[in-house]
Amino acid sequence: MIYTPICEMLGIKYPILQGGMAHISDANLAAAVSNGGGLGIISAANGNIDWIENEIDKAFSLTDKPFGVNVMLMGENIEQIAELIARKRVAAVTTGAGNPERYIPMWKDAGIKVMPVVASSALAKLMVRAGADALIAEGGESGGHVGDMTTMALIPQVCDAVDLPVVAAGGIADGRGLAAAFMLGAQGIQIGTRFLAATECAISRTYKDKLLKAGDGSTIVTGKRLGHPVRSLKSPFSRGYAKTEYTNISDEDLEMMAVGTLRAAVVDGDEKKGCFLAGQIVGLVNKEENAAKMIEEIFSDAENILNGAKKWVK
Amino acid sequence: MIYTPICEMLGIKYPILQGGMAHISDANLAAAVSNGGGLGIISAANGNIDWIENEIDKAFSLTDKPFGVNVMLMGENIEQIAELIARKRVAAVTTGAGNPERYIPMWKDAGIKVMPVVASSALAKLMVRAGADALIAEGGESGGHVGDMTTMALIPQVCDAVDLPVVAAGGIADGRGLAAAFMLGAQGIQIGTRFLAATECAISRTYKDKLLKAGDGSTIVTGKRLGHPVRSLKSPFSRGYAKTEYTNISDEDLEMMAVGTLRAAVVDGDEKKGCFLAGQIVGLVNKEENAAKMIEEIFSDAENILNGAKKWVK
Repeated sequence: MIYTPICEMLGIKYPILQGGMAHISDANLAAAVSNGGGLGIISAANGNIDWIENEIDKAFSLTDKPFGVNVMLMGENIEQIAELIARKRVAAVTTGAGNPERYIPMWKDAGIKVMPVVASSALAKLMVRAGADALIAEGGESGGHVGDMTTMALIPQVCDAVDLPVVAAGGIADGRGLAAAFMLGAQGIQIGTRFLAATECAISRTYKDKLLKAGDGSTIVTGKRLGHPVRSLKSPFSRGYAKTEYTNISDEDLEMMAVGTLRAAVVDGDEKKGCFLAGQIVGLVNKEENAAKMIEEIFSDAENILNGAKKWVK
Repeated sequence: MIYTPICEMLGIKYPILQGGMAHISDANLAAAVSNGGGLGIISAANGNIDWIENEIDKAFSLTDKPFGVNVMLMGENIEQIAELIARKRVAAVTTGAGNPERYIPMWKDAGIKVMPVVASSALAKLMVRAGADALIAEGGESGGHVGDMTTMALIPQVCDAVDLPVVAAGGIADGRGLAAAFMLGAQGIQIGTRFLAATECAISRTYKDKLLKAGDGSTIVTGKRLGHPVRSLKSPFSRGYAKTEYTNISDEDLEMMAVGTLRAAVVDGDEKKGCFLAGQIVGLVNKEENAAKMIEEIFSDAENILNGAKKWVK
């Protein structure tokens, strides 16, 4: 059994978090991950308070295990979302796209563990001072919004910079990735892309099939010009957008090109208009199966790999 | 002691290769790495046959240990360089920027081990069919010319795709990186950025000082628009180039902007005009020391980490 301070802190069996994926991570997925022994996470990124409250209540009805909520701090209704989370006393909050400093006291008063997502050691240090309980250090090979630093380069530098437990995210889908993250100093992992292929994940059939078919050269980063790069599967939309970035199109028109494209992928499964978010590790995702089964396989493989780590030490 | 099939194949003590760095990796650096127990590598990327021959001869005089040559296949005089290498019977060739297929029989006839650098599992498979002895899978967190895939995502996917030994490159500077690479399936590592800070590396003082001062957000990738992205330290040149890529400058003028900038960094130490190549792991490079000392520290740390890999397995 692999048991780290992250398990103890969150009251979970396996030190694995499910990434908060905007417009995707709902109560069903979060509860499936939590029931499987990890920390499921509901995404509050759509900003719809009623939907978020409903999903939190639903998750409480689907699992008696801890789960969390992910808040994108540059989204809408942040104040309201932050208060809702405190009122609901979920186990944990993960935050992205900004500085959660002002909400941390309220969450901690409610007994909630706060784990900001960081993409640099500078932000990591800031989050320690703000009172974070642990950090999720995410490399730019992840899907969705990405930073510059990769997991391999980021984790040891963040671990050197702070004394908090670090959860590694980005480029991890199996026991090998977990074992590697631990060697770099992490005490837990966060997985997004592989959970997209969970039976409990309600994305369109088209989206899922594209994930299962994808290989190691299947993703692309777009949006650098506007300062918020996003990784997705190569598709008519993402390829077209990537080319357009280098034209003399206005920033406003470029921004407009992306509106509604995530919904087109997740809900409509529109191959042409959809933006199908996925990380570089998508090539290792080849099976649709229960989240719990994924988690068990990852940890059983990781245990074998860590037990055999001395293979080349004579 | 860490001993893998890569050691056996190359006749070296430690499974570590020094990256072939254009206009930097000369006989002195290569011999220092080889004398330290790794595989030093001379870069043939400047295309100057006399210089390359001279450096190879010099390396033979500086070490009785195996060393190699790196060939950039899109450079000048490739045919001549390939023949020179075969004639000199160095221990190994590493190749980048293209397909070495046509030279592999000649090199193998000369008893030379051939290790192409690959950035995707598709190229990895191609290199196996071409007769490569091992592969160097390099993630885009490395310095210099970079691919899209990161080390964390690339290594397991390449290891799944081929049966050859894989050397991991990109984002590795210490024992943690080595241990992580091994967990992903690699049997050796290649290091570039840290060796830039070796006392035996003859780059300008300015270049070295910039490396030692750099942190985890200090690098930038430029050149994507022209299809050959390069990672370097943020500098007046690289920041300026990055901005210019999104303007309506012609491709020819953009290309011209970069001419002579590597020399300006390596030889002249020109802070303004120089393009100071470095990988994302540069934040972990804080000391100038002998290459041999670096290697010993990396392997002694890695051994401890691998021996303690079961730390969280209960």
